[in-house]
Amino acid sequence: MTEFISSPANKLIKEIASLKHKKYRDNLGMFVAEGVRLVEECAAARWPVDVCIYTEAAAAHKRAQAVIDRLIAANCRMVVVPEDIYHRLSDTEQPQGLMAVLKKRKVSIEQMVAKEGKPPLIVVLDGIQDPGNAGTIIRTADAVGCTGVVALKGSADIYAGKTVRATMGSLFHLPVAEGLTSEELVAVLAKAGISILATCLQNSAVYYQADLKKPVAIVLGNEGQGVSRELMEAAEVRLNIPLIGQAESLNVAVAAGIVLYEAVRQRVTL
Amino acid sequence: MTEFISSPANKLIKEIASLKHKKYRDNLGMFVAEGVRLVEECAAARWPVDVCIYTEAAAAHKRAQAVIDRLIAANCRMVVVPEDIYHRLSDTEQPQGLMAVLKKRKVSIEQMVAKEGKPPLIVVLDGIQDPGNAGTIIRTADAVGCTGVVALKGSADIYAGKTVRATMGSLFHLPVAEGLTSEELVAVLAKAGISILATCLQNSAVYYQADLKKPVAIVLGNEGQGVSRELMEAAEVRLNIPLIGQAESLNVAVAAGIVLYEAVRQRVTL
Repeated sequence: MTEFISSPANKLIKEIASLKHKKYRDNLGMFVAEGVRLVEECAAARWPVDVCIYTEAAAAHKRAQAVIDRLIAANCRMVVVPEDIYHRLSDTEQPQGLMAVLKKRKVSIEQMVAKEGKPPLIVVLDGIQDPGNAGTIIRTADAVGCTGVVALKGSADIYAGKTVRATMGSLFHLPVAEGLTSEELVAVLAKAGISILATCLQNSAVYYQADLKKPVAIVLGNEGQGVSRELMEAAEVRLNIPLIGQAESLNVAVAAGIVLYEAVRQRVTL
Repeated sequence: MTEFISSPANKLIKEIASLKHKKYRDNLGMFVAEGVRLVEECAAARWPVDVCIYTEAAAAHKRAQAVIDRLIAANCRMVVVPEDIYHRLSDTEQPQGLMAVLKKRKVSIEQMVAKEGKPPLIVVLDGIQDPGNAGTIIRTADAVGCTGVVALKGSADIYAGKTVRATMGSLFHLPVAEGLTSEELVAVLAKAGISILATCLQNSAVYYQADLKKPVAIVLGNEGQGVSRELMEAAEVRLNIPLIGQAESLNVAVAAGIVLYEAVRQRVTL
């Protein structure tokens, strides 16, 4: 069941190495989750693993061995590689010697908003550039039990290695839709009766005075420019996080946490 | 007034290059703020600039030229260097060609807690390892108008290049004390009548049910281990940020933002 590949010219190795680039992730519909914890998370979430790549040194660790055993039991294709090949595949500075190659999951925004239960709480990434910010927002959206996350066209790729790592496994826990335009999003939200709330720094209601109990989509904008004009105009409410000191702005992932946990506080009685 | 230095063997150049390492920042009591925006912020905050280093290419940009002019008017020592020397000094991947060399400011925790006005709101970094997290927390503490930040021994160096950049200038706006032990901190806070509130993930009060209007020091712990045992035991209240979805934890800078903005919400009537 376990293969050994030691040639950098091997087709599989070259294909996996290409997944560092968005173009190939898009073409192949695949991505990589790297590190023991992330591989554990995708195994626990039953996200099918196409190929698991690891080094002998990594497999010597108990925790890695446990997840490797689990994937073997699930009939996953297992490939052992030498350290130098692993380094070639890895996107991290200190590789842990274990990665899973996964298929992207196509998430439909229509299905997301149609989910029954509590009023939808959706997070929209509108031009977020930093993969660490995008991943951290997905992690926080998971923490508050959001309905799902929508990464609009022009935002950081949710399947980039750095984004996936920053989600700390949350990418496997909640629906994350990608590639929509703001027009498409606005149309779907309007049809579903979900209000658009855009975060910004001025001319707006203080976020904790807004009603976050009703069905809402909270839009977080680009690190420098903020929310796009299209979504600012489509927004029912502009949410302002007050700045009391001298800081000119907040980190966007911090801003997301503040607004999402205010929704938690307001919704506790729902 | 403006010098040109083109030798990498120059004493000043070697000294500034050494400031990438904590050991030399500690020995010399100096640090570096890099990039146009940060240099603007420290000039605006009247933090004295010992030396300003820049490249001719950087000075060709209007915004950089404005801050260079301002520093020249303030009789700052100005040094122009060629690109290769600048790269040697720079701690960033895409250097902007402008940096300020600054003296650390010694902030006394006793003075910080004795500040008159609103009830103190202090942020404590207890073993935060990531400079990006430490800097982002300082930025958020500034945004909410905190009394100050205390970085305990064993936390990321607040004067590391990455921390300084992540503060986005907030390091220059509010008092940040460093190098204390938790015992020293506990003694000062007890004397000043400031309650210790430790953030954690279990066995504790939900953060928005705690009284954040009174004088409080909010402790944020290590990314993996959380708040230290000493401060957990010294805490009057353990603040829990509820996790509703499947995420096992929150990013610590996000957690800081959630609790600090709950303090803003509660304190709005103060």
